Amino acid sequence: MTKNLVIGIDLGGTKIYTALASLSGEIIAEVKVPTQSTLGVTGVRQNIIRTVERLTAETGLKGQVRAVGIGIPGPLNVKEGVVYQAPNLGWREVPIRQILEEALKLPVYIENDANLAAIGEHLRGAGAGVKDLIYVAVGTGIGGGLILNGQIYHGAGFGAGELGHMTIEPDGRPCNCGNKGCLETLASGNAMVQKALDLVKNGRGQSFLAAAGGEPQKISSYLIARFAAAGDKEALYVLEAAGTALGIGLANVINLLNPSLIILGGGALKVGRFYWEAMEKEASRRALQAAWRQVRIVPAGLGDRSGLFGAIALACQFETPGVSRQTS
Amino acid sequence: MTKNLVIGIDLGGTKIYTALASLSGEIIAEVKVPTQSTLGVTGVRQNIIRTVERLTAETGLKGQVRAVGIGIPGPLNVKEGVVYQAPNLGWREVPIRQILEEALKLPVYIENDANLAAIGEHLRGAGAGVKDLIYVAVGTGIGGGLILNGQIYHGAGFGAGELGHMTIEPDGRPCNCGNKGCLETLASGNAMVQKALDLVKNGRGQSFLAAAGGEPQKISSYLIARFAAAGDKEALYVLEAAGTALGIGLANVINLLNPSLIILGGGALKVGRFYWEAMEKEASRRALQAAWRQVRIVPAGLGDRSGLFGAIALACQFETPGVSRQTS
Repeated sequence: MTKNLVIGIDLGGTKIYTALASLSGEIIAEVKVPTQSTLGVTGVRQNIIRTVERLTAETGLKGQVRAVGIGIPGPLNVKEGVVYQAPNLGWREVPIRQILEEALKLPVYIENDANLAAIGEHLRGAGAGVKDLIYVAVGTGIGGGLILNGQIYHGAGFGAGELGHMTIEPDGRPCNCGNKGCLETLASGNAMVQKALDLVKNGRGQSFLAAAGGEPQKISSYLIARFAAAGDKEALYVLEAAGTALGIGLANVINLLNPSLIILGGGALKVGRFYWEAMEKEASRRALQAAWRQVRIVPAGLGDRSGLFGAIALACQFETPGVSRQTS
Repeated sequence: MTKNLVIGIDLGGTKIYTALASLSGEIIAEVKVPTQSTLGVTGVRQNIIRTVERLTAETGLKGQVRAVGIGIPGPLNVKEGVVYQAPNLGWREVPIRQILEEALKLPVYIENDANLAAIGEHLRGAGAGVKDLIYVAVGTGIGGGLILNGQIYHGAGFGAGELGHMTIEPDGRPCNCGNKGCLETLASGNAMVQKALDLVKNGRGQSFLAAAGGEPQKISSYLIARFAAAGDKEALYVLEAAGTALGIGLANVINLLNPSLIILGGGALKVGRFYWEAMEKEASRRALQAAWRQVRIVPAGLGDRSGLFGAIALACQFETPGVSRQTS
């Protein structure tokens, strides 16, 4: 019997998003469950396995599955199938490929989640047919994936694409990575919240502090966005500062890589147009003119499924007859 | 008769460096003449032609030349053979390939000079055998060339590699490109001079000002380097500030591209170890740990001939039987 289905999994810090799909990438069924990262590697492994079993049992297509592709939020070794570190999962040196292959009795392929989102957008999203594109995920943090000459670019150790850790302000806020003034500390969802908390500490931002019930830790980027949309000047300032920082980071990437497309995805983009407009204004100012004329900056075309479609593609690509398992 | 020689030309703002070489890249004869860019396109064209004629006449090998490869200091279109802009030459929209092909009656291939230096180093310099490397030229300005997956990476419009125009200080000194706080304004040879002039303006740097005969415009990066080597604190400060800025820029590139090698070339590196040490210290601090472990930073292996060897390779590569003229 020919096996003609694959499983794609987008493993995030809060949700596991799993789909059963055809070899041409069409989704047949999908399921989303909480990751429950506090349960540790074993617990998350169990949750992953359950999503796969649920999809295959529900559809009665278990015997048809050829391979599994999974996206992980952190640096990893694609070749060895090992996750070096996934802060949002609390993982360190986890041989996830082996763990899942033993449990699922299927070939498993792993890749960084931002890289898979880039692949998903490249294959069937906003970047379809584009040879050189950068996918930027703006969420709690900032990650990225590079498609160069039509292929994902891994770099020397599968670490390429970390534009969230580009220094934007040499003497800026400390970043989790140990550096200071990283793009992530200035332009991410978390950066917006930090900036708002700075205002509150100085007796400003009283409008959104009140809306958060007077509890600073309840201020979210969405709350700030709501106030900005209503014309609150301090909320606007927070979004514009973050958007400006993103614009500097993107201009740096544009000057270095001269891409034809930058695709922005991730939850932090839901804060509305002020963030996007500040980004565009600053990027247009700082990018070299020729490179700026050659690039478009667009939102992700697949919404929150960019990574899922990438994971499906990852599972498919190695299953083409004559193509062996990726080794570089 | 089989034609088995090529001409490589490294066209700079001050010198034209031309070589006659075999198809395996061995230099048979070379010549260096002043560019005389003030003579305009026609004058520079004449000087280029003269270097070619001198080499072929001297060696009696004129009939053996198959093709010419030339590196140009500025953005250009490799495919159309047109230089968009070469500030150091005063060129704008110059169809240099056509101009030289008509004069030399030979196929001519053009490429950005930093890209050719990257290719030269990749083929026979410090980057031999390395798949992913960044070549950075630190001279009056800062340019770069990217070898990714073993090939020069052009980007959407042949503009990739412009890391000199990465923003390092958002509110920093204005750059020729129109942006502020570019790496080039902080870490280049010219940036060192500007920093020294800032000191002089504030009544400091009197030692090197005196050595320049009291004339600020005679302060050069080499003069500063001489004083730094002798222990002058203010000269040291200038070199360390420039090296630190370079370190930030390189860390950004390391985080984004995860290269296995960065090769530094160009005249400004002749200022001595203080600049290099400050660069290394800052880059190690700011790069992500895994990416830092995977990268080496080394000086160019071919000295001032990196670009020349790249130009020779450019002329050779299209002359391999079965390989057609580059179209992308």
